[in-house]
Amino acid sequence: MSRFIKTAYQGFASYTPGEQRNDGTYIKLNTNESPYPPAPSVLEALKENDLEALRLYPDPTGRILKEKLASLYDVKPENVFLSNGSDDILNFAMMAFVDDDEKIAFPEITYSFYEVIAALHGVQVNRVPMCASDNLPALFINPDDYCSLHQNIIIPNPNAPTGAALTVDQIEKIVRTNPDHVVLIDEAYVDFGAESAIFLTKKYDNLLVSHTFSKYASFAGGRLGFAIGSAELINDLMTIQYSTNPYNINRLTMKLAEATVDADTYYRANAEKIKATRMRTTAALEAMDFTVIPSLANFVFARHQRIAGKTIYEEMLRRFVLIRHFDSPVITDFNRISIGSDEQMNQFLERMQEVINEKS
Amino acid sequence: MSRFIKTAYQGFASYTPGEQRNDGTYIKLNTNESPYPPAPSVLEALKENDLEALRLYPDPTGRILKEKLASLYDVKPENVFLSNGSDDILNFAMMAFVDDDEKIAFPEITYSFYEVIAALHGVQVNRVPMCASDNLPALFINPDDYCSLHQNIIIPNPNAPTGAALTVDQIEKIVRTNPDHVVLIDEAYVDFGAESAIFLTKKYDNLLVSHTFSKYASFAGGRLGFAIGSAELINDLMTIQYSTNPYNINRLTMKLAEATVDADTYYRANAEKIKATRMRTTAALEAMDFTVIPSLANFVFARHQRIAGKTIYEEMLRRFVLIRHFDSPVITDFNRISIGSDEQMNQFLERMQEVINEKS
Repeated sequence: MSRFIKTAYQGFASYTPGEQRNDGTYIKLNTNESPYPPAPSVLEALKENDLEALRLYPDPTGRILKEKLASLYDVKPENVFLSNGSDDILNFAMMAFVDDDEKIAFPEITYSFYEVIAALHGVQVNRVPMCASDNLPALFINPDDYCSLHQNIIIPNPNAPTGAALTVDQIEKIVRTNPDHVVLIDEAYVDFGAESAIFLTKKYDNLLVSHTFSKYASFAGGRLGFAIGSAELINDLMTIQYSTNPYNINRLTMKLAEATVDADTYYRANAEKIKATRMRTTAALEAMDFTVIPSLANFVFARHQRIAGKTIYEEMLRRFVLIRHFDSPVITDFNRISIGSDEQMNQFLERMQEVINEKS
Repeated sequence: MSRFIKTAYQGFASYTPGEQRNDGTYIKLNTNESPYPPAPSVLEALKENDLEALRLYPDPTGRILKEKLASLYDVKPENVFLSNGSDDILNFAMMAFVDDDEKIAFPEITYSFYEVIAALHGVQVNRVPMCASDNLPALFINPDDYCSLHQNIIIPNPNAPTGAALTVDQIEKIVRTNPDHVVLIDEAYVDFGAESAIFLTKKYDNLLVSHTFSKYASFAGGRLGFAIGSAELINDLMTIQYSTNPYNINRLTMKLAEATVDADTYYRANAEKIKATRMRTTAALEAMDFTVIPSLANFVFARHQRIAGKTIYEEMLRRFVLIRHFDSPVITDFNRISIGSDEQMNQFLERMQEVINEKS
């Protein structure tokens, strides 16, 4: 850090994104991207006349894309907020809604970005402890812990890195019993089998649901996130966004995101393929003596009965397979494995079998 | 605002971007875009294989683009910060460097975004008064007012909306006499005749220079800004950026920005054309009894001797020409007019002559 950094940030540790080794030799199962390419119609959406218009600022209201998303999710355009990836939604929500004497609550084991962004804005946090289930360590969200909490809340559903999901009834109870605080449900991974809470935004003005195109929509490289909530909540997010980056979505992303919404059927079919591959991968891992958390996301979280998580990560890396390991006490023996194509998972399983044979 | 907005933001007024009427019937001279299309090589840079890679996250380090920019500006890659438009640089700098008991100083008449973003982060501001020159109102920066100020400073060079520029010697004196504070020179408009202070970043660790591709590089729709400064200052900006939006530049923008740097000669030639058109436009406006502030930017700031600024704005709008009017006391009789192509400026001048004839 420079000698000019403000006092509050001295020693501040920033978020570390997953490794991006895109040199083609690795099987990349570490950042939960889709193994399938964007729809052909999305690739065709870039016509030369759009490219020439790159000299002009994009539409800061994102009117067309908001209309398309509103239609897809059965809400109104004023219920839709657009952002440069969904991390910005978390950022703006953390800025907008948590007063200095308040806390934001989120699960103790979850997406590590929440912690970083709260620290950045000096927001106090309530890390809600996880609970155990069957023979598994304390890795699960107990929805009752969030009811009548009277704090702002973020819950990813499904949660990362476990893939475990709450039901929409459980979510509704949390939202209903915290009527004076914003409950943000981060649905980055909802498209692989969990239930979306979007329809509840019509009933509860304190519910904000965030989505991303990075997972199910094969668009991590395009950067598009969106949030759905009451017009008032959306307007608050827009106030922050217009005051930091009024033209936050570029023309190319906007155009391709519009085409992505139009091609929704293609992406739903991909999500079904990923669900089938997840089921097959889970069974194969279990046959190799892995414990796999039941997942409704496009990844699984798995621990071997005999081999340390870090060893598995390193041995797979040596075999050109990237998975995600977290150096954190409770979950150190787990790895998070993105669900790739069937072919990728066959290679993954083959190399994993080698590791098991060698290290058992 | 919703009932959930935090106390500090109650009644907060966000930034209002310039009108984006891109329906093709307007001559758009209100947001300082380039009238020229991106270079043909930029338009060709989108190959199908890049588009398929949209399913993967972009490189969060922006390595290739940083190397190209470093080479163009004769610095090292660790001296370059990349952002989703240059407003994000202002946002991150405002967050990173101004302590709670400090102020940030900027000209009283300048880009209105500085004021908004300071308010958003609760940063105290010092609006440095402007000074008069010849028979013109107080519209000019007096560099002596910023020397030994011992505050963080933002100065746009050239300034907006006037187009007036400081010399690099004047900038250096400001930087040298405020060694314990960051001086941010916003060079959004530097490519149309002013001198860049980038070379001074090698000499002064408190100097940060921000640039954008939105003006001279025909890329307002692509969203790319960059800052150049000491490795330590750049690292501070990266700490904030990684903690709010680790993948802030999408793959398409990154690819096209790389091609833009490669085509720098094309854009320099466009800047020369714009300078020639600015000279011609200035002379023509003066012949119509306008007072035009000497501009080194891709816009001019002009006041008619007899007709109110607002009237001119409205009459031009009626004639399908968009220029920028600011409802602010000292500058209310001025309008900011972007320099378009020669053809656009001919039409602009023709319709302006109609307005003058009708309203004089």
